[in-house]
Amino acid sequence: MRQQGVFFYWETCVEIFRHKDLLGIEQLSVEYIELIMDTAVSMKEICSRDIKKVPAMRGKSVVLLFQEPSTRTRMSFDIAARRLSADCISLTANTSSIVKGETLSDTAKNIEAMNPDMIILRHPCSGAPHLLANIVKAGVINAGDGIHEHPTQALLDLFTIREKKGRIEGLNVVIIGDIAHSRVARSNIIGLKKMGADVTVSGPPTLIPIDVQSLGVHVMCDPAQAVYDKDVIMVLRMQLERQSKKFFPSLREYATFFGLNGELLKKAKEDAIVMHPGPINRGVEVSSEVADGASAVILNQVANGVAVRMALLYLLMGGSKSDHVD
Amino acid sequence: MRQQGVFFYWETCVEIFRHKDLLGIEQLSVEYIELIMDTAVSMKEICSRDIKKVPAMRGKSVVLLFQEPSTRTRMSFDIAARRLSADCISLTANTSSIVKGETLSDTAKNIEAMNPDMIILRHPCSGAPHLLANIVKAGVINAGDGIHEHPTQALLDLFTIREKKGRIEGLNVVIIGDIAHSRVARSNIIGLKKMGADVTVSGPPTLIPIDVQSLGVHVMCDPAQAVYDKDVIMVLRMQLERQSKKFFPSLREYATFFGLNGELLKKAKEDAIVMHPGPINRGVEVSSEVADGASAVILNQVANGVAVRMALLYLLMGGSKSDHVD
Amino acid sequence: MRQQGVFFYWETCVEIFRHKDLLGIEQLSVEYIELIMDTAVSMKEICSRDIKKVPAMRGKSVVLLFQEPSTRTRMSFDIAARRLSADCISLTANTSSIVKGETLSDTAKNIEAMNPDMIILRHPCSGAPHLLANIVKAGVINAGDGIHEHPTQALLDLFTIREKKGRIEGLNVVIIGDIAHSRVARSNIIGLKKMGADVTVSGPPTLIPIDVQSLGVHVMCDPAQAVYDKDVIMVLRMQLERQSKKFFPSLREYATFFGLNGELLKKAKEDAIVMHPGPINRGVEVSSEVADGASAVILNQVANGVAVRMALLYLLMGGSKSDHVD
Repeated sequence: MRQQGVFFYWETCVEIFRHKDLLGIEQLSVEYIELIMDTAVSMKEICSRDIKKVPAMRGKSVVLLFQEPSTRTRMSFDIAARRLSADCISLTANTSSIVKGETLSDTAKNIEAMNPDMIILRHPCSGAPHLLANIVKAGVINAGDGIHEHPTQALLDLFTIREKKGRIEGLNVVIIGDIAHSRVARSNIIGLKKMGADVTVSGPPTLIPIDVQSLGVHVMCDPAQAVYDKDVIMVLRMQLERQSKKFFPSLREYATFFGLNGELLKKAKEDAIVMHPGPINRGVEVSSEVADGASAVILNQVANGVAVRMALLYLLMGGSKSDHVD
Repeated sequence: MRQQGVFFYWETCVEIFRHKDLLGIEQLSVEYIELIMDTAVSMKEICSRDIKKVPAMRGKSVVLLFQEPSTRTRMSFDIAARRLSADCISLTANTSSIVKGETLSDTAKNIEAMNPDMIILRHPCSGAPHLLANIVKAGVINAGDGIHEHPTQALLDLFTIREKKGRIEGLNVVIIGDIAHSRVARSNIIGLKKMGADVTVSGPPTLIPIDVQSLGVHVMCDPAQAVYDKDVIMVLRMQLERQSKKFFPSLREYATFFGLNGELLKKAKEDAIVMHPGPINRGVEVSSEVADGASAVILNQVANGVAVRMALLYLLMGGSKSDHVD
Repeated sequence: MRQQGVFFYWETCVEIFRHKDLLGIEQLSVEYIELIMDTAVSMKEICSRDIKKVPAMRGKSVVLLFQEPSTRTRMSFDIAARRLSADCISLTANTSSIVKGETLSDTAKNIEAMNPDMIILRHPCSGAPHLLANIVKAGVINAGDGIHEHPTQALLDLFTIREKKGRIEGLNVVIIGDIAHSRVARSNIIGLKKMGADVTVSGPPTLIPIDVQSLGVHVMCDPAQAVYDKDVIMVLRMQLERQSKKFFPSLREYATFFGLNGELLKKAKEDAIVMHPGPINRGVEVSSEVADGASAVILNQVANGVAVRMALLYLLMGGSKSDHVD
C-alpha cells in the first residue's frame, strides 16, 4: 500500500535526521535540505487526497506562539500540524500573558512544563527562537525572528524552485527589495547559495546592507541589469509601515524604479518564474499584471508551504526522540 | 443500525444537491430548503447523543474567516464542523494579515492555495462571499455580508418555525425592527415568501426601505396592527451602534412604540411564537417578560442553528465533489 | 493492561463523585479533594506517554469562556481537554459578542443552547460562575472569578505540595503578598485549612483583609517572622496594574521588604518549597535567585496544572451523567 511505503521511506529518513529544532537555514546541510524537500513531495500528495490526514502526530501537542501578526504562516503551520493529526494550541500576543510583562524565557519554561512536543515561534527579536531552543526540551521551529531568519519560507521557496525548474544548482536568482530588513531575503540567500544557485540582490542603495557581498551575492542596484537573463525573480514585500523611516523618497518612486512590471520582467529569461513571500502590495513591489501572470508561482509557494511544514514537523518529531537528553 | 440508515438516506440526498456554495436564500429552491431542513433533523439527533460526533468530514479543513465580531454564529459553525469531525481553522480580522492591507481577493487565493474544503465568511461588505465563491474551488458559506443576506440565520429560522408550527406555508409572520439595515430581515423575507408564508414588516418609517413591497411583503408601521393575529413574530436586534445616525429619536422612544412587550404580544394569535436572531437588547426591542416567556423560541433558534449548519456543511461537501471544475 | 486498570479505577471513583460543577474549594469535602488528586496521578502518567491522549471525552464539547486575559490557565485547560479527546471552543472577551453588550446570563443561555458538556469560565466578577452554573445544564468550572476563588489553582497547589512533601496535614505554610485582592490566596487558604495545614499570611498591612483571621489563619506582617520555620512558602503575584491605587509606596519598597530573596528564604525550613501561581515578576515578589533555585517548584505547579485539570474534567463529566435533571 502506498501509505505504508511512504512511512517506511520516512523511517529511514528519520534515522539520519538529527535535529530537535529548525532555527535557521544556516544550520542545515545540503543533504538535510534535500531530505526535507523529498519528504515534502510525499506530504504534498497527502494534501491532495480526499481525506487529508495521516496519524503521524496523533497525541502530540504543537504550540503556535506568534508574537507578531500573521495570517499565512500561522495558518500554514496550523493546517500542517492538523493534517498530521497533532493537537494545535495557538497563543497570540494579545491573548497571552505577555500583557502581564513576562519574559520570553519564563513564558517558554511555562509552556515547556505543559509538555508540548513542538513550539513554533514568531518573534520580533532576532535570536528569540535560539533562546527558546536552549531552554525547552520540545522542538522549536523559527517562524520568523526579527530581521534574522525565516527558514520555513526559504525551504518552501527552494522546494517551489526545484518543483518548477527541476533543479536549484546553477540557476540565476535575483532578489529585489528591502534586502537590509528582510529575514526572507537572508534565509533565501543562505539557502540558495548552499544549493548552488547564483544570487544577485537589487534595491535602493539605502536598503542594501553594505556587507552583503560577504554572503556571496552580487549587488546590482539597477533593476533592469539585475533582472537580466535570470531564471528566478524573487520580489520582497515592501514593509509599508517602515516607510515613515524614509529609506526611500516615496512608495510611488519605489514602484516606478523597482516595482516588477511586465516590461521589467521581459528582461529576464523567457521561462523565468516570479516569487513573492506574500502578502503582496499590488502596484508597489509587483504589478497586478505580473502577480496574476503566467510567470508567477506565488500561490504555488503558499500551497507548498503546507507540505514543507508537514515534512519538517514529521522529521523533527522523529529526530527529537534520539536527540535530546532530559 | 440507525447511523447506517441516516447515512444511506444522506447519500440519496446528496445526489440531488448540486451546490458548492451557500451565498443567499435567493439562490435556493423550495426543494433545497426542504432538503436542508430534513437533513437538519438527523443532525439534531446527533447533537443529542452522548458522543456528539460523526466522521462525515474527517480530514476536511474548514476555514472560519470572520471579519466582523460575532459569538454565536462563529461558535455555531465551529461546533457544527467539529461534530462532523472536520478540522477548523479560525481567522479573525485582528489576527489576520488584513492589518497588512491585503485585498479580500488575495486573501481568498492564499487560503485557497492551502486547499481547504470550505470557507465560511462573514464580511462587512455586501457581496463579499460572491466574490470569494468565484475565486475559490472550496465551498463558500455566507455567514452574513453587510446589509445583504444572512442565509444560515434564515434557514435556522425556517427550521424552527417548521419544528414549532408543523409547517411554514400559510403562516402569518411579522418582522419588526430596522428592516432597512438588516440582512436577517432580507434573508428571512425571501425564505418565508418562498416557503409560502404571508409576511408583514413593521418599524419606524425611517427604517423601512421604500421599495420593500417589491419583495411581496405588507408594510404596517403601527406595531399593534402589524402584530394582530400573527402566528410568528420575528423581532430584529436594534443595532445600538447605529443610534448615532438618528434614524429614530431615542432608544426609549423606540422601546415604547416598537418594543415587544406582553401587552403587544397579546394582539397576536394565542399560540404565536416570538423569534429573535440574538443577541437581544432586553428592554429595547423585546421586554424580558416576553424574551423569557413561553412564546419565545429564541434559544431553540440557537440550538437549531448548530443542526442546520451541520446539515449545510454535510450537503455542500457532498455536492462539491461533482459540481466544480478545476 | 494498564490503561484498562486506570479506567476501571476511575469507574469506581466516578460512582462516588456527585458534582456537576467546580465553583470553589469551599464546596469540596476532604474526600473529594483527595479523589481529584489521586485521579491526577493517573492523568500525569498519561501526560508522560509518547501518545498523550485518551478517548475519555471523545465527542464532548468544552467551551473556554475567558473574559480576562490569561495564558497559562486557558492553555492548561485547553491542553487538558484535548488530551482527553474533547473538542475545545475558545471564546475570549474581544472576539465574543460581549462587545455587543449582552448579559452573562444571556451569553450563558446561548452557549447552553448549543449543547456543550462543560463551560470553563474566567470572569472579572466574583460569583459569575455560580450564576452560570444555576443557568446551564453543562458543567461549570471556575477558572478564576474576580477576587473570590480560583479553585483549580488551589487544587494544583495542593497536589504539588502532596507530591513534594508526601502529605499536607500538619505542614506549616505561609502565603506572602496581596492577600486582600487574591483569589489564589483565598482558595488556597480554604483548601490548605481543609487538608489540615497550618496557614500564615504576610504582606503590607494595607493588603491584609482585616477579618482574615476568621478563615483560621495567622497574620504576621513581618516577613522574616512569617517565613520562619515554614515548610511551604507561597508567593503571590504582585498585580502591577493595581499599583496606581497606592496600597503601598512603591514596587521597589515592596520588593525590599516583602520580596522573597535568598536571605529571607534561609529563615524557612531547609527543605522548604517555594510556590508561585505565575506569571512571576522577577525582582518584585521573588528574586531570580529563588525563582530559579532548587527550592522553587513553580514549574512543577504548571505541569501538575494540566494533570489536575484533566482529572477534574474527567470526574465532572462522569458525575454529570447522574447528577442533573433536564
